[in-house]
Amino acid sequence: MNYPKDLATLINYYEKLPGIGSKSAERLAIATIELKEEEITEFSDALKNAKKNLSRCSVCGHITDQELCDICRDETRNKNLICVIEDYKNIFAFEKSGKFNGTYHVLNGLISPLDDIGPEDINLNSLIVRLEKLKNPELILALKPTIEGEATTMYIKKILEGKNVTISRLAYGIPIGAEIDYLDNITLEKALEDRKKISE
Amino acid sequence: MNYPKDLATLINYYEKLPGIGSKSAERLAIATIELKEEEITEFSDALKNAKKNLSRCSVCGHITDQELCDICRDETRNKNLICVIEDYKNIFAFEKSGKFNGTYHVLNGLISPLDDIGPEDINLNSLIVRLEKLKNPELILALKPTIEGEATTMYIKKILEGKNVTISRLAYGIPIGAEIDYLDNITLEKALEDRKKISE
Repeated sequence: MNYPKDLATLINYYEKLPGIGSKSAERLAIATIELKEEEITEFSDALKNAKKNLSRCSVCGHITDQELCDICRDETRNKNLICVIEDYKNIFAFEKSGKFNGTYHVLNGLISPLDDIGPEDINLNSLIVRLEKLKNPELILALKPTIEGEATTMYIKKILEGKNVTISRLAYGIPIGAEIDYLDNITLEKALEDRKKISE
Repeated sequence: MNYPKDLATLINYYEKLPGIGSKSAERLAIATIELKEEEITEFSDALKNAKKNLSRCSVCGHITDQELCDICRDETRNKNLICVIEDYKNIFAFEKSGKFNGTYHVLNGLISPLDDIGPEDINLNSLIVRLEKLKNPELILALKPTIEGEATTMYIKKILEGKNVTISRLAYGIPIGAEIDYLDNITLEKALEDRKKISE
């Protein structure tokens, strides 16, 4: 199958994106060339600008087009409450829930001895610096429940021992809407362990 | 949910593409800004170039970056066999099968009296001109089995009556791999009507 060269290049780039196979890439590339001339120009500029103008928030590590991200700049946010996450993408998920009024700290990775990633390789020092400036801060560790996530959680807990920091982690349990038949054993075990009295 | 402005623009453009919802658009936009600087530049240029350099083949109407598309330029293709299709995208499907050695003619639409689209609104005249230059050409009408597809098939059949053109249409029937339980009535009816003797 020979596509015209420019179309082939475009298909090739779409295929680099996650979840886009060759069939989807073809469909997206064709849809793209059917956009209006000015839309193409804007799309093309948006690609370059997004890469050029976005960098990391100097406090929390979220992506932003300014020195501080909009969450760190927001006066109404509780700066004493910090949700620690692996990746800035997680912030979008929390923000969409609209239920969290604290701030974030992006680790940009998790401790993983097997992959030779130690505490000094992730964005931990800046977290300690942040915490030292706060009075009775609370940390919510929202790391994924894998070996690496647990190792990082345990490490953070350990280095903050004796310091005046309240530390919690996200609850493990049954996701809302799930069929109990299809749950994995570990989730079910955690859900049993952490069961809550209905009167609470 | 507030995305940084340039990210929001990018998400907005991805959302214009077919089959991309807001969640996919967010994921694609984030993956895009994580591409390397030079990849972004190439992707961005590919977008503009694809739009700028691609036009329609002057013979068959396929997209191409030259005067004639690669199929019309191909000396090994049977120029007397023309497969008539609604849209150039159909060509990619035929070419992937690798089983067709003729050429194509893109109608860019179908006759649809309800939408006020008549024979003069689709790319039919150039088909007649093509056919006049050929000796005993064969036409395969590969139009979709809808009212518009049937109307166009019938119209082409009518205007070519008495001219020395062999006309056929794609077979209707059960698609390979389909579960008979789930087939619609009309397909099943066509498959019964057009049944073939096993000895053939």
